[in-house]
Amino acid sequence: MLSEFLLAEMTRLGTQDALPLHRQLYEALRRAMLDGKLAAGERLPSSRDLAQDLDLSRNTVVAAINQLSVEGYLASRVGSGTYVNDHVPRVNHRAARGAPGQVPHLQAARLSQRGDALAHRFSAQSLEVQPFTPGIADFSAFPLALWQRLQNKHWRMTYPDMLDYNTSGGYAPLRRAIADYLRVFRSVQLDADQVIVTTGTQQSLELCARLLADHGDTVWVEDPAYWGAMKAFIATGLTVHPVATDDEGIHPREADDAQPPKLIYVTPSHQYPTGAVMTLARRQQLLATARQHGAWVLEDDYDSEYRFSGPPISSLEGLDADGRVLYMGTFSKVLYPGLKLGYLVVPKGLIEAFRQAHYDLHRPGHMPTQAALAEFIEMGHFASSLRRARQTYAERRQCLLEALRPVLGDGPDAPRISGAEQGLHLCLRLPARTDDQAIAHRLAQQGLIVRPLSAYCLRRTDLRGLVIGYGYATLGEIARCGPMVTAAVQRALPG
Amino acid sequence: MLSEFLLAEMTRLGTQDALPLHRQLYEALRRAMLDGKLAAGERLPSSRDLAQDLDLSRNTVVAAINQLSVEGYLASRVGSGTYVNDHVPRVNHRAARGAPGQVPHLQAARLSQRGDALAHRFSAQSLEVQPFTPGIADFSAFPLALWQRLQNKHWRMTYPDMLDYNTSGGYAPLRRAIADYLRVFRSVQLDADQVIVTTGTQQSLELCARLLADHGDTVWVEDPAYWGAMKAFIATGLTVHPVATDDEGIHPREADDAQPPKLIYVTPSHQYPTGAVMTLARRQQLLATARQHGAWVLEDDYDSEYRFSGPPISSLEGLDADGRVLYMGTFSKVLYPGLKLGYLVVPKGLIEAFRQAHYDLHRPGHMPTQAALAEFIEMGHFASSLRRARQTYAERRQCLLEALRPVLGDGPDAPRISGAEQGLHLCLRLPARTDDQAIAHRLAQQGLIVRPLSAYCLRRTDLRGLVIGYGYATLGEIARCGPMVTAAVQRALPG
Repeated sequence: MLSEFLLAEMTRLGTQDALPLHRQLYEALRRAMLDGKLAAGERLPSSRDLAQDLDLSRNTVVAAINQLSVEGYLASRVGSGTYVNDHVPRVNHRAARGAPGQVPHLQAARLSQRGDALAHRFSAQSLEVQPFTPGIADFSAFPLALWQRLQNKHWRMTYPDMLDYNTSGGYAPLRRAIADYLRVFRSVQLDADQVIVTTGTQQSLELCARLLADHGDTVWVEDPAYWGAMKAFIATGLTVHPVATDDEGIHPREADDAQPPKLIYVTPSHQYPTGAVMTLARRQQLLATARQHGAWVLEDDYDSEYRFSGPPISSLEGLDADGRVLYMGTFSKVLYPGLKLGYLVVPKGLIEAFRQAHYDLHRPGHMPTQAALAEFIEMGHFASSLRRARQTYAERRQCLLEALRPVLGDGPDAPRISGAEQGLHLCLRLPARTDDQAIAHRLAQQGLIVRPLSAYCLRRTDLRGLVIGYGYATLGEIARCGPMVTAAVQRALPG
Repeated sequence: MLSEFLLAEMTRLGTQDALPLHRQLYEALRRAMLDGKLAAGERLPSSRDLAQDLDLSRNTVVAAINQLSVEGYLASRVGSGTYVNDHVPRVNHRAARGAPGQVPHLQAARLSQRGDALAHRFSAQSLEVQPFTPGIADFSAFPLALWQRLQNKHWRMTYPDMLDYNTSGGYAPLRRAIADYLRVFRSVQLDADQVIVTTGTQQSLELCARLLADHGDTVWVEDPAYWGAMKAFIATGLTVHPVATDDEGIHPREADDAQPPKLIYVTPSHQYPTGAVMTLARRQQLLATARQHGAWVLEDDYDSEYRFSGPPISSLEGLDADGRVLYMGTFSKVLYPGLKLGYLVVPKGLIEAFRQAHYDLHRPGHMPTQAALAEFIEMGHFASSLRRARQTYAERRQCLLEALRPVLGDGPDAPRISGAEQGLHLCLRLPARTDDQAIAHRLAQQGLIVRPLSAYCLRRTDLRGLVIGYGYATLGEIARCGPMVTAAVQRALPG
């Protein structure tokens, strides 16, 4: 009966909109869920059975199921198949479409398909900032008085141009300061005019996705993945293809080549969220794969400023011989989030197109702030802020590692730490049968928010753990909250 | 021979990507131009002939030609058909795709299709700001010292939350101040929590397009149209359907209903660029049309702060009984562009979805600036700034009107002024056979930039004129540059 519904929907869609087959099936399955033909929690027939019933190739079925999983309609469970997710809203779609209007919940249902994905997928359940929230820096140490003095100086010097939009990819002295920093500390090969000052990684990613890929083009992302990047790719209409990622970084297999990428998005120096460092061998392999596919590589070097142990990791961009890596970073994790300044380094051949589109789409402004930041960097305040912060975070990291020690083990399946060498979070890896979402839920009831690793997984079903940020946690908070985490983990460990 | 090439390409595309027919034809025509099969300046066969040769419906052919015109590949000339535009780049597409890499012009060619449109279409040829550049305000009178004092005050009071991202759609006192202003001066019906503080109209438009429409959905735009909005719609993958606009505003006909809109974008109080005020009858008709199609209306009230003559015009939103109008405005035209603060008013049922997606996609920041602006408005500085500016602009407007008077006439086909009742630009309308681009070109050679009205047209071929901004021009500059314009117009007038 399901397959009849799907066939009917696909025929209708094929006639009306001439969508490709995998999109027709995607859409038909989606309708089946929204109309309640496939209920929350229900198990989907296997891809093999679906392919046979619908007379489709297995690849077509897998592509549709992949996209629905990425968008959160479906979830896989180890060894037991694919299920309709619990949070899929059941909407009488046709009725909602037929009678647009007044009733609030109908209005909410009138979001477009992408609007629905943007408003409801890959969003934190709680935006509250807590000791262990990952991705948050401690900006209480930010030198506010100094910053205010610098801002005032540049406001006093402000000539009309500084109040206007900027057309040159950012304030020139700031672009120079960023280029100097990246050349020395991150081995990025660049001139200042390759730097585009953006409002942060989100804007950098969208600019790349829009200028270098078309709607429906495929982007490879690491699985597990950074939510913010997922949002950017959904917003720009890309087809997300998850590529499994292990302790050496992203690891494309032959099967992945069947979904050739236009873009490959990676976090090589500190994989988000596992914290894996991409090995040199994998970096070279990735660049070769990108060359073979004619793909662009987007390198998000989001917290490379904080490295605590192990050898320094250079950028992937530094290994790139043919100008296919676009490198991006942000000041929000280092200074304060609301500053809204980040950077994107583009190959020389793309400078003009990126500058023009950036101007037309975003109308960059806030030039006095850019000028203040340029001076902040030039005068060495950025370096000394980093030094101080590194010291603070190193202590917090150490404290957290000690707090978690009681729960760690030596066995191949025992809890272990990954990704603590760098950045502002680490990952407490748990055995594959642990219910990490239940642990996070229990801790939330006790008032403590940690993120389950499985919530970052797109297609993988084998990863369990807790992603724990320590950027915002004081030593006292870590000492108090750490034992809450270990207790919850102990209780939940299988066997 | 052309039709053979098109048929072969369409067959290939139909097999590979299963695109709808009009998209196949669009793509085949695009390739024909890029490969040089259709040369710049060459005349396209009529839509009737193409339909017959390719065995397609005339509607399919018209849809493809429309899209290519909107994206600037084709241009229509009155009474003589459709031509390939001069600026279409001839690229050996296949070669560029086969050998990605090093050579700069090949890299440039590796922009995606949408990247190409974003980087090269609807962009000003020169970003230089000059006396008559439209869309520019004079921010030399902006009270810098006062503004700096307010900013300092809020930086001193800054508690950590103010340095972080904002999750509630903007700083609450700013949202209240905006709501109070809009309720009183623009007759917008709203509560403060319906206000989303954005970085400006571009961000407001993209948010609406992404949350309320899917890729390929149709947006109706006024013809002629605002370039910035075109960019936002191209960037978000919408199909742009131009609707002819006359002196009473947008005027949808029966033929337009064949392209049912998901969104309708309008500038009712001062049509950009003609300056037409949408009449009450047209407003009611537009809301009825939107209701009939279940479409959302995006009202861009971009320069409503400056009204010089005629009755005050309320917002379209104020007439809306069923919550389908999203209203937007910006502070950049009133205070200074680099401030990067605008607002979007959403119906109550959409508040949560818009706040969440706005946070996830844009991570709004700059809270101390938002706080300073809230106080700037509350303390009456905004109102007094507006009063002073209105006085200044009224004088400039008068001066420009006098400078242009020598060229105006009384006949039905004589040069006339439109849109001078409001805003910071007016439109000098010229007879349909005038070459307004040649006038603009001649003035550019003399060092003066004005924009030809025909450059804003999407499908219309009958509009000629000059769009002249006076927001940034001093009285002296107007007195000096005005006669340059009238001289160039006199020389170019037909007959």
